[in-house]
Amino acid sequence: VTTTTVTVTGMTCGHCVEAVRTEVGRLDTVRSVDVDLDSGLVTIESDAPLDSAAIRAAVDEAGYELVP
Amino acid sequence: VTTTTVTVTGMTCGHCVEAVRTEVGRLDTVRSVDVDLDSGLVTIESDAPLDSAAIRAAVDEAGYELVP
Repeated sequence: VTTTTVTVTGMTCGHCVEAVRTEVGRLDTVRSVDVDLDSGLVTIESDAPLDSAAIRAAVDEAGYELVP
Repeated sequence: VTTTTVTVTGMTCGHCVEAVRTEVGRLDTVRSVDVDLDSGLVTIESDAPLDSAAIRAAVDEAGYELVP
Protein backbone atom coordinates (compact mmCIF):
# COMPACT_ATOMS: atom_id res chain seq x y z
CA VAL A 1 0.00 0.00 0.00
CA THR A 2 1.26 3.45 -0.98
CA THR A 3 0.47 6.52 1.11
CA THR A 4 0.30 9.86 -0.67
CA THR A 5 -0.34 13.19 1.04
CA VAL A 6 -1.40 16.40 -0.64
CA THR A 7 -2.76 19.69 0.64
CA VAL A 8 -6.00 21.09 -0.72
CA THR A 9 -7.15 24.69 -0.38
CA GLY A 10 -10.65 26.11 -0.37
CA MET A 11 -12.49 23.54 1.72
CA THR A 12 -14.75 25.24 4.25
CA CYS A 13 -17.09 22.58 5.61
CA GLY A 14 -17.97 18.91 5.82
CA HIS A 15 -19.62 19.01 2.41
CA CYS A 16 -16.33 20.14 0.89
CA VAL A 17 -14.54 17.30 2.66
CA GLU A 18 -17.02 14.80 1.27
CA ALA A 19 -16.68 16.19 -2.26
CA VAL A 20 -12.90 15.77 -2.15
CA ARG A 21 -13.15 12.33 -0.55
CA THR A 22 -15.55 11.16 -3.24
CA GLU A 23 -13.57 12.40 -6.24
CA VAL A 24 -10.17 11.28 -4.97
CA GLY A 25 -11.69 7.99 -3.88
CA ARG A 26 -12.62 7.26 -7.51
CA LEU A 27 -9.00 7.12 -8.63
CA ASP A 28 -7.69 3.69 -9.58
CA THR A 29 -6.36 1.54 -6.74
CA VAL A 30 -7.32 4.01 -4.00
CA ARG A 31 -8.26 2.24 -0.77
CA SER A 32 -8.95 5.14 1.55
CA VAL A 33 -8.96 8.91 1.64
CA ASP A 34 -8.65 10.90 4.84
CA VAL A 35 -9.27 14.64 4.75
CA ASP A 36 -8.47 17.09 7.52
CA LEU A 37 -10.63 20.16 7.04
CA ASP A 38 -8.58 22.54 9.19
CA SER A 39 -5.20 21.83 7.63
CA GLY A 40 -6.41 20.79 4.17
CA LEU A 41 -4.22 17.70 4.44
CA VAL A 42 -5.46 14.79 2.34
CA THR A 43 -3.96 11.38 3.03
CA ILE A 44 -4.55 8.77 0.35
CA GLU A 45 -3.82 5.07 0.59
CA SER A 46 -3.62 3.16 -2.67
CA ASP A 47 -2.42 -0.16 -3.97
CA ALA A 48 -0.18 1.50 -6.55
CA PRO A 49 1.64 4.83 -6.68
CA LEU A 50 -0.70 7.61 -7.79
CA ASP A 51 -0.14 9.95 -10.67
CA SER A 52 0.02 13.49 -9.32
CA ALA A 53 -1.81 14.88 -12.36
CA ALA A 54 -4.66 12.46 -11.69
CA ILE A 55 -4.90 13.60 -8.07
CA ARG A 56 -4.88 17.21 -9.20
CA ALA A 57 -7.64 16.50 -11.71
CA ALA A 58 -9.78 14.79 -9.07
CA VAL A 59 -9.39 17.70 -6.67
CA ASP A 60 -10.21 20.13 -9.47
CA GLU A 61 -13.29 18.06 -10.31
CA ALA A 62 -14.44 18.40 -6.70
CA GLY A 63 -14.07 22.17 -7.03
CA TYR A 64 -10.89 22.78 -5.05
CA GLU A 65 -7.19 23.24 -5.65
CA LEU A 66 -4.02 21.49 -4.69
CA VAL A 67 -1.29 23.47 -3.06
CA PRO A 68 1.47 23.32 -5.73
CA VAL B 1 -47.88 33.58 -3.61
CA THR B 2 -46.42 34.28 -0.19
CA THR B 3 -42.84 35.46 0.25
CA THR B 4 -41.08 34.55 3.49
CA THR B 5 -37.56 35.61 4.40
CA VAL B 6 -35.40 34.10 7.09
CA THR B 7 -31.71 34.34 7.93
CA VAL B 8 -29.61 31.21 8.28
CA THR B 9 -26.22 31.02 10.00
CA GLY B 10 -23.37 28.61 9.42
CA MET B 11 -23.39 28.33 5.64
CA THR B 12 -19.86 28.54 4.26
CA CYS B 13 -20.00 27.38 0.65
CA GLY B 14 -22.14 26.46 -2.31
CA HIS B 15 -22.75 22.97 -0.92
CA CYS B 16 -24.27 24.53 2.18
CA VAL B 17 -26.51 26.69 0.01
CA GLU B 18 -27.68 23.63 -1.91
CA ALA B 19 -28.40 21.71 1.30
CA VAL B 20 -30.61 24.53 2.59
CA ARG B 21 -32.30 24.99 -0.78
CA THR B 22 -33.10 21.29 -0.97
CA GLU B 23 -34.53 20.92 2.53
CA VAL B 24 -36.55 24.13 2.50
CA GLY B 25 -37.71 23.35 -1.03
CA ARG B 26 -39.35 20.17 0.28
CA LEU B 27 -41.81 22.09 2.44
CA ASP B 28 -45.42 22.00 1.30
CA THR B 29 -46.45 24.60 -1.28
CA VAL B 30 -42.94 26.00 -1.71
CA ARG B 31 -42.33 27.25 -5.24
CA SER B 32 -38.83 28.63 -5.01
CA VAL B 33 -36.00 29.13 -2.55
CA ASP B 34 -33.28 31.72 -3.03
CA VAL B 35 -30.26 31.64 -0.75
CA ASP B 36 -27.64 34.37 -0.44
CA LEU B 37 -24.48 32.82 0.96
CA ASP B 38 -22.85 36.04 2.14
CA SER B 39 -25.80 37.40 4.08
CA GLY B 40 -27.47 34.11 4.95
CA LEU B 41 -30.73 35.53 3.66
CA VAL B 42 -33.17 32.88 2.45
CA THR B 43 -36.15 34.03 0.41
CA ILE B 44 -38.95 31.52 0.04
CA GLU B 45 -41.93 31.76 -2.26
CA SER B 46 -44.86 29.53 -1.46
CA ASP B 47 -48.50 29.15 -2.38
CA ALA B 48 -49.58 29.30 1.27
CA PRO B 49 -48.13 30.97 4.36
CA LEU B 50 -45.36 28.82 5.87
CA ASP B 51 -45.21 27.61 9.44
CA SER B 52 -42.09 29.05 11.03
CA ALA B 53 -41.47 25.85 13.00
CA ALA B 54 -41.48 23.90 9.75
CA ILE B 55 -38.93 26.25 8.22
CA ARG B 56 -36.78 25.95 11.31
CA ALA B 57 -36.99 22.15 11.17
CA ALA B 58 -35.99 22.13 7.50
CA VAL B 59 -32.99 24.36 8.16
CA ASP B 60 -32.01 22.17 11.12
CA GLU B 61 -32.31 19.11 8.90
CA ALA B 62 -29.89 20.66 6.46
CA GLY B 63 -27.47 21.18 9.34
CA TYR B 64 -27.79 24.93 9.91
CA GLU B 65 -29.60 27.33 12.19
CA LEU B 66 -32.10 30.09 11.82
CA VAL B 67 -31.33 33.44 13.35
CA PRO B 68 -34.03 33.68 16.04
